Amino acid sequence: MTEVTRERVEAAYRALGSGDRSKIIEYYAEDLRWLVPGNHPLAGWYESLDEFLELMATTGKLTGGSFRMDREVIMVGDDVSADVCHNYGLRAGAPEDSQSPYERMDATVFHFMRWRDGRIVEGHDGLFGDDATAFSQFWAPFRPGGIRDGH
Amino acid sequence: MTEVTRERVEAAYRALGSGDRSKIIEYYAEDLRWLVPGNHPLAGWYESLDEFLELMATTGKLTGGSFRMDREVIMVGDDVSADVCHNYGLRAGAPEDSQSPYERMDATVFHFMRWRDGRIVEGHDGLFGDDATAFSQFWAPFRPGGIRDGH
Amino acid sequence: MTEVTRERVEAAYRALGSGDRSKIIEYYAEDLRWLVPGNHPLAGWYESLDEFLELMATTGKLTGGSFRMDREVIMVGDDVSADVCHNYGLRAGAPEDSQSPYERMDATVFHFMRWRDGRIVEGHDGLFGDDATAFSQFWAPFRPGGIRDGH
Amino acid sequence: MTEVTRERVEAAYRALGSGDRSKIIEYYAEDLRWLVPGNHPLAGWYESLDEFLELMATTGKLTGGSFRMDREVIMVGDDVSADVCHNYGLRAGAPEDSQSPYERMDATVFHFMRWRDGRIVEGHDGLFGDDATAFSQFWAPFRPGGIRDGH
Repeated sequence: MTEVTRERVEAAYRALGSGDRSKIIEYYAEDLRWLVPGNHPLAGWYESLDEFLELMATTGKLTGGSFRMDREVIMVGDDVSADVCHNYGLRAGAPEDSQSPYERMDATVFHFMRWRDGRIVEGHDGLFGDDATAFSQFWAPFRPGGIRDGH
Repeated sequence: MTEVTRERVEAAYRALGSGDRSKIIEYYAEDLRWLVPGNHPLAGWYESLDEFLELMATTGKLTGGSFRMDREVIMVGDDVSADVCHNYGLRAGAPEDSQSPYERMDATVFHFMRWRDGRIVEGHDGLFGDDATAFSQFWAPFRPGGIRDGH
Repeated sequence: MTEVTRERVEAAYRALGSGDRSKIIEYYAEDLRWLVPGNHPLAGWYESLDEFLELMATTGKLTGGSFRMDREVIMVGDDVSADVCHNYGLRAGAPEDSQSPYERMDATVFHFMRWRDGRIVEGHDGLFGDDATAFSQFWAPFRPGGIRDGH
Repeated sequence: MTEVTRERVEAAYRALGSGDRSKIIEYYAEDLRWLVPGNHPLAGWYESLDEFLELMATTGKLTGGSFRMDREVIMVGDDVSADVCHNYGLRAGAPEDSQSPYERMDATVFHFMRWRDGRIVEGHDGLFGDDATAFSQFWAPFRPGGIRDGH
């Protein structure tokens, strides 16, 4: 059994950030499941590593590559880890100085992950305070004023 | 100018229900805009009659044809109307007796419509009480337990 | 039977605005029920004219008297009326230029009212688009950053 | 410096459960701050141990003593801990078999806590999936149908 350590959690995030699938599968199981909070278009369970990576690509595309997670703390337990990040993002095409919750994300996010044999098999994003509201606004299918994407 | 009367509102709903585009355009303008509440996948502005009809088709498909609006009252003013309906629907594939808000809709909905020359040019769906919550749950991109459509 | 007309709806709002109970009871029944949307502290049914007037006083107090409804349209039917208003308000103590949804309300609200013998016996506030979210943020028990009232 | 260990986290919960303030202050700082998610009446920051204990008393009262947290996992880091619990509760006065989200809580909750010298100084409750919605429904100021407490 590979112990879950802070170093291993950090290495998993680095592998994910690299976008290199051969590195990613050292830390993420092929049968990974991941739960995105809310009831906006991206919410719900993603049922494999491929679906999860597609989700990552989608969030990158929707934010024009601006999506960023600053990791603040990492906690570990028996085959589990949790980390707290601050997420920033600006919706693709939005004005740089937009303060609209439909265009700017600036929220503390919590990740809870279950590991098996050194790989992540299940993940949950969670939110604090009233950030679940802001999160659902940011991933809404529309821009400020209710304008749906594509218009 | 064609006056907005309760009879005309009823006739508009009948035309919409018929699915016959030649009848529909007697009551709905080609440049109709319609706003769906919430931040679930269907929410936001639909920007033409065609987009609105596509939305109607989508709601029919997502509910396996079970979606139903019972009109309770109609109110009219100068080139405006409002009506209160009770909406029922069961998500396609859900058990008939499901009580989950992600599978069963049972909500009072308010429609506010602006008319021009006898045709509807703008519509808003609205909700009362805590039904905005239930509405967003019903149109969420997942079934109970967060299972995304297609799984 | 007293018919519900636009003039009568306007007169009811004027009476309510006057704060003069002897005028108010010409238009609002003593057994009035009123439903406030959302699940914030003010949400739910108010079960008498007295409770409704207390609610009005509370909204005035929470907004330091800044709460304002601009009526845009009125619609009537048989013993029913609906109107669409634009509501503005700034939370008491908030900076004049605050753009936080927890401090500034700027939302389209509709009211659906049932009348009996010329008096309102039941009312519902409703919201369009994603304004149910904004409405619940404005009436949240806390200011921006989650600071609860009194701190 | 007292290290944060799983044993210490468990002891803190046991102390809290005992209701004995002399035990509680071994694990919780007097200047504890705690953030409850959502925009329902209980949401926002509680700004001292006394306010936090009052919150605990309120949740117990609102649930007729039925509120229960089953701790599933504990994770620790440098002066931080996180745990995942399953929370159950039935609103005081609700039928035992109620399935209404306004009466029954059945949600996975996580806690993220910062520690200083062996005592918790800051805590956040968070939620996964669409449980933020359910959580706000459960702590709404009304029972099913929008009936406000006291009616």
